Amino acid sequence: MRNENDNGDDEKAVAVLGLGAMGTALAEAFLAAGRPTTVWNRTPAKAQALAARGAVAPPTLTDAVRASRLVVVCLLDHASVHEALDPVADELAGRVLVNLTNGTPSQARELASWAAGHGAELLDGGIMAVPPMIGTPAAFVLYSGPQGAFDAHRGALDALGESVYVGSDHGQAALRDLALLSGMYGMYMGVMQAFALTRGEVPATEFAPMLRRWLTGMGVLVDSTAAQLDSGDYVTGVVSNLAMQTAAYPNFLAVAQEQGVRPDFIAPLYPLMQRRVADGFGHEDVTGVIDLLRIDENQKEN
Amino acid sequence: MRNENDNGDDEKAVAVLGLGAMGTALAEAFLAAGRPTTVWNRTPAKAQALAARGAVAPPTLTDAVRASRLVVVCLLDHASVHEALDPVADELAGRVLVNLTNGTPSQARELASWAAGHGAELLDGGIMAVPPMIGTPAAFVLYSGPQGAFDAHRGALDALGESVYVGSDHGQAALRDLALLSGMYGMYMGVMQAFALTRGEVPATEFAPMLRRWLTGMGVLVDSTAAQLDSGDYVTGVVSNLAMQTAAYPNFLAVAQEQGVRPDFIAPLYPLMQRRVADGFGHEDVTGVIDLLRIDENQKEN
Ligand SMILES: NC(=O)c1ccc[n+]([C@@H]2O[C@H](COP(=O)([O-])OP(=O)(O)OC[C@H]3O[C@@H](n4cnc5c(N)ncnc54)[C@H](OP(=O)(O)O)[C@@H]3O)[C@@H](O)[C@H]2O)c1
Ligand SMILES: NC(=O)c1ccc[n+]([C@@H]2O[C@H](COP(=O)([O-])OP(=O)(O)OC[C@H]3O[C@@H](n4cnc5c(N)ncnc54)[C@H](OP(=O)(O)O)[C@@H]3O)[C@@H](O)[C@H]2O)c1
Repeated sequence: MRNENDNGDDEKAVAVLGLGAMGTALAEAFLAAGRPTTVWNRTPAKAQALAARGAVAPPTLTDAVRASRLVVVCLLDHASVHEALDPVADELAGRVLVNLTNGTPSQARELASWAAGHGAELLDGGIMAVPPMIGTPAAFVLYSGPQGAFDAHRGALDALGESVYVGSDHGQAALRDLALLSGMYGMYMGVMQAFALTRGEVPATEFAPMLRRWLTGMGVLVDSTAAQLDSGDYVTGVVSNLAMQTAAYPNFLAVAQEQGVRPDFIAPLYPLMQRRVADGFGHEDVTGVIDLLRIDENQKEN
Repeated sequence: MRNENDNGDDEKAVAVLGLGAMGTALAEAFLAAGRPTTVWNRTPAKAQALAARGAVAPPTLTDAVRASRLVVVCLLDHASVHEALDPVADELAGRVLVNLTNGTPSQARELASWAAGHGAELLDGGIMAVPPMIGTPAAFVLYSGPQGAFDAHRGALDALGESVYVGSDHGQAALRDLALLSGMYGMYMGVMQAFALTRGEVPATEFAPMLRRWLTGMGVLVDSTAAQLDSGDYVTGVVSNLAMQTAAYPNFLAVAQEQGVRPDFIAPLYPLMQRRVADGFGHEDVTGVIDLLRIDENQKEN
């Protein structure tokens, strides 16, 4: 009888390295999809609950890597990936490493070279979900790296959420991941500022539905801004001119002061708006501020 | 025959002062709702299109104010409201002034005292919509001030969108308005950062659906954060611990540098996350950063 964990010959097998909140959710999704799943974590205790649900939890990382042709890694950061994998690099030959650890495009490219040097292919990924969303249609996961490796393992990866392939350049998934997360943290800074301002005046759970309705409605700004960026036309059909927005902006700083709240999160936009107005773009939309975010643009004009 | 513009005796009449993008949309909504509408703008030419659609556009501001018991003001800012209204203050006695100009809670309270000094009641409002949304169910408008004045004129105000009364303290509408707009500008800074990072790598209109999907999905953070704030429990059920988020955060700064983008919009959150981790809250959610936004909290702990 063939052992499904024997040298990764079972085409359906998956190994998951790292069992934090996210790695655990990934392993659970593979198990739920009926994949023979081998798990490993630096702190072994975290593997126990998964073992009780049918995962194989071998004693060593080497055993875990050998269990599958598809090795999914989800650790804290890039440094921890090397710390864990460097000692078992020679075991990776012939396998596909899927790195779902948060990292930069440069780190993804570095890991791809490193893996290639050990005979492995890398798919670098970005998980667009929190752990409870994994395995539901609300999750999507970005992948970049060799198309062949993606196509070969897509069936397994689809267990995690919608798989979105964004190109052979290993850095492309990380670029989009970090851009989306930058968007989210921007939104979250706004949310934190909104709650900080109203704190003590209105319960947060009472204010939340209004805030969510407003932010959801204003999501149209994503599409209108994109159309303006691609066309280069920041003025046709403008309904909220920059001069008006810039006139209102000091009120966000003033209300922060009135409410005893730090203006750090809301302050950085104001000088860029003022500069666009000073440069003669007060009749345009605020979109032109994005031009000022380019460092070379700043050096050119300052 | 009674003249509907004679001294504001027509209970259905409305006057709109200020015909920028927003004031024009307000006047159009009143006209569409069948309200006799009198308009005024500092630059008279902007009244012409509305006059062609049935609005009355008298030659002087005094005439416009006299036309209605309900006087809606939507000018650039607080200073422009006084600049316009101070000379006609004596005409306001017995009227309800609805100020939909963006302003702070303090400015709202100041205007309420000023109006009371001239025998008028103030409803201070915050328009949660861009002009094309006015008169549609997507728009809502916050009002604070005397409940009686709101109840008396709600029928007219409902023409603009959903009318939301938030209390008799004149500052309450402005507080919520500025908090919601702070939230929106935070989100927008995130959106701008996301587009700046991906610019030149992926067309904005191609990236936009993914960004919007992500931000809409992450809107759940509004509700989860509110529940944590009201309960004071930032740790039960945490799925994205602060230590992990703080470990990833330098990647947002690094990718900005790699892509030649200023980190100004994304940078301010990082030191506050680091401080919470240093203070021993790495196992919690990021929500505790909101505590650090309180200036007295900072002074206490620094
Ligand atoms: N949670 C989310 O919402 C979310 C969403 C999208 C992406 N991500 C990304 O997913 C990755 C994991 O996040 P998480 O939420 O699972 O974090 P977590 O719950 O804090 O778990 C961190 C994991 O990394 C391991 N680790 C840390 N340093 C290590 C090292 N030097 N060697 C070996 N293992 C090490 C930990 O092992 P021990 O148990 O031994 O400490 C643990 O398994 C991160 O890159 C994160 O950015 C998370
Ligand atoms: N547009 C939006 O998306 C939006 C959304 C919510 C709230 N608001 C708020 O609505 C208000 C108006 O915005 P808007 O978009 O209509 O701006 P806008 O198109 O720039 O129009 C500004 C208006 O203010 C008038 N004005 C400026 N200074 C004045 C002064 N000293 N005396 C008399 N009138 C003066 C202008 O008159 P002239 O024509 O003579 O210059 C014009 O009617 C602002 O407080 C804004 O924050 C706007």
